[in-house]
Amino acid sequence: MAEFTQQDYAMMLRAIKLAQGGIYTTAPNPNVGCVITRDDEIVGEGFHFRAGEPHAEVHALRMAAGKAEGATAYVTLEPCSHYGRTPPCAEGLIKAKVSKVICAMQDPNPQVSGRGIQMLRDAGIEVLVGLLEADARALNPAFIKKMETGRPFVQLKMAASLDGQTALANGQSQWITSSQARRDVQGFRAKAGAILSTSQTVIDDNASLNVRWDELADSIQVTYDKQQLRQPIRVILDRHNKLFPELKLFNAEGELLRVSPQGEIPLQFADDGRIDLSVTLESLATQHNINHIWVEAGATLASSLIQQRLVDELVLYLAPKLMGSDGRGLIGALGLQAMHQVIELDIKELKQVGPDIRIIATPIYKEQ
Amino acid sequence: MAEFTQQDYAMMLRAIKLAQGGIYTTAPNPNVGCVITRDDEIVGEGFHFRAGEPHAEVHALRMAAGKAEGATAYVTLEPCSHYGRTPPCAEGLIKAKVSKVICAMQDPNPQVSGRGIQMLRDAGIEVLVGLLEADARALNPAFIKKMETGRPFVQLKMAASLDGQTALANGQSQWITSSQARRDVQGFRAKAGAILSTSQTVIDDNASLNVRWDELADSIQVTYDKQQLRQPIRVILDRHNKLFPELKLFNAEGELLRVSPQGEIPLQFADDGRIDLSVTLESLATQHNINHIWVEAGATLASSLIQQRLVDELVLYLAPKLMGSDGRGLIGALGLQAMHQVIELDIKELKQVGPDIRIIATPIYKEQ
Repeated sequence: MAEFTQQDYAMMLRAIKLAQGGIYTTAPNPNVGCVITRDDEIVGEGFHFRAGEPHAEVHALRMAAGKAEGATAYVTLEPCSHYGRTPPCAEGLIKAKVSKVICAMQDPNPQVSGRGIQMLRDAGIEVLVGLLEADARALNPAFIKKMETGRPFVQLKMAASLDGQTALANGQSQWITSSQARRDVQGFRAKAGAILSTSQTVIDDNASLNVRWDELADSIQVTYDKQQLRQPIRVILDRHNKLFPELKLFNAEGELLRVSPQGEIPLQFADDGRIDLSVTLESLATQHNINHIWVEAGATLASSLIQQRLVDELVLYLAPKLMGSDGRGLIGALGLQAMHQVIELDIKELKQVGPDIRIIATPIYKEQ
Repeated sequence: MAEFTQQDYAMMLRAIKLAQGGIYTTAPNPNVGCVITRDDEIVGEGFHFRAGEPHAEVHALRMAAGKAEGATAYVTLEPCSHYGRTPPCAEGLIKAKVSKVICAMQDPNPQVSGRGIQMLRDAGIEVLVGLLEADARALNPAFIKKMETGRPFVQLKMAASLDGQTALANGQSQWITSSQARRDVQGFRAKAGAILSTSQTVIDDNASLNVRWDELADSIQVTYDKQQLRQPIRVILDRHNKLFPELKLFNAEGELLRVSPQGEIPLQFADDGRIDLSVTLESLATQHNINHIWVEAGATLASSLIQQRLVDELVLYLAPKLMGSDGRGLIGALGLQAMHQVIELDIKELKQVGPDIRIIATPIYKEQ
């Protein structure tokens, strides 16, 4: 492990902070930040804002202009080595004659990892890797999961009363959670590459399932103009072709993919005759370049995803209400016979959102 | 409202902090702290530690000794004016010739409120009232409720999985919450005047329902010696006389009161044929001088207490587990037909206790 200076840490932290400027817009691309310094002074910096637009290094090099020669570049991710919609960033850094590049992490795609670094080294540039790697990885959990495993990162939203009910026995559920919690959900939708739901949920709620900029939290609105709104792709499981054109879904902004008999995504069934969720998710990642899926649906899909170990993160809103055990439960019947069979989670974050509680938790999938 | 100086605020805060030294031991007496200053220097301070032992003012006056003359006394509660197991503190302050007394609040007992203050004023002492009153009230929610209403403060403990289940369908429930949460419960038991449960719960768990000093949190142990352990009174609803002598309950330390045919507390029934919880709680307060009741029981008693609006505070532990909706619910069936009928709560505190979540919430009893 290379020894990094205090200045190096400070600059990489700054690059990571910059990278966060893209969290609502870069999908399916990763969030990347770049800072260029010469003689310990910042001469250029930037971050990747949107797929198809310049990468972080390009913004930083443009700002540095003539001052990049002999400079040090701090990048939160290994510079790319391939021609995509933009020329490779490694080439840009070489042309600008920087003398040193510090990356927080290698490219997570095992097939290209290290190539950008090699290009730089071949050009005589000193390259150090691994500064604040954990923080840099935290910028892109979904991008990294997709690159490393070929599968998307699945975040499951659920909402219930404190006693775990999602509706009264008669189905009434509007509204269990507060308007603040519903605004908070908009922020999660805005970060996701896709929103996954079912025709049942869409029809029951006549849900648009898109991002409404006006409902984003003020703290998000100030960093993210309405004009810049990126709508996640909406993916609806609709095996019986129940969606009909009058639904708000069809009139709201945002791409729509149906998993249905005539849909854009072919129905694929598992042995039990139900939609094969694992295969469907994988095809969303590989065929549709979706890294990050935000699921908003009912107890049936939620239970299936959890039981099939497909959930990476649970985002659970609990409203300070008691509804009684004769309502509808958060998750379907699991038929457990012993306490060691319960599904265990690890709480990652706990906070109040308006009057409600928000819990972010990771399922712990035990060896079977 | 009198104008208080910065010194006054600082001294009353100190008195409040001191008062907290008694939270595990003073029941059924209130927590009270006292600081005595002369020429802006602290010459005496103390707090009430245990019923029957000296009041806060006595400790502070003893420490101040000859220096109390012309001094200012800060007391978190109006000094008492009556002869109990100790002489009235107002008299002690008069004899010591303090020249000024500042109280955070009047005595909450409407029948004696203001008498101590009057005694002091009659003796020519300047008395100011109301400094940091809200903080002082927070020291003694149960004592104050009992004094103001004649009814005890009822804290209901519940524990469930994140999906609101308290046991599997077959009744298995050990352990849903962590050992840290169970230690945390010991701290609540230690603060309470009484622990209320049912014969069903006692028999199912063979529960001692007392405080085990060794299981108190380290942070409590350092402030509270094992020798000082005060056991709350255990009150068990046992209308069918199911308790039997082999139970741990009978061999554990602590007073025991049975609400049963031959018990220490007579059975009183409501119109629906069930134990009248309201009357029973009131008799615990008035006949047995219990201010603060900590309830640990099953869903039936919990539901009844909540539905009868007898719960002041809910302490809910949620374990990061999913058990499925075929388990046993946190609260019984409520038969609600519309969302406006749900029982609403106000979250007072949210924290992690080991791997679990602890929620402290107050039911909002709407007008009926």
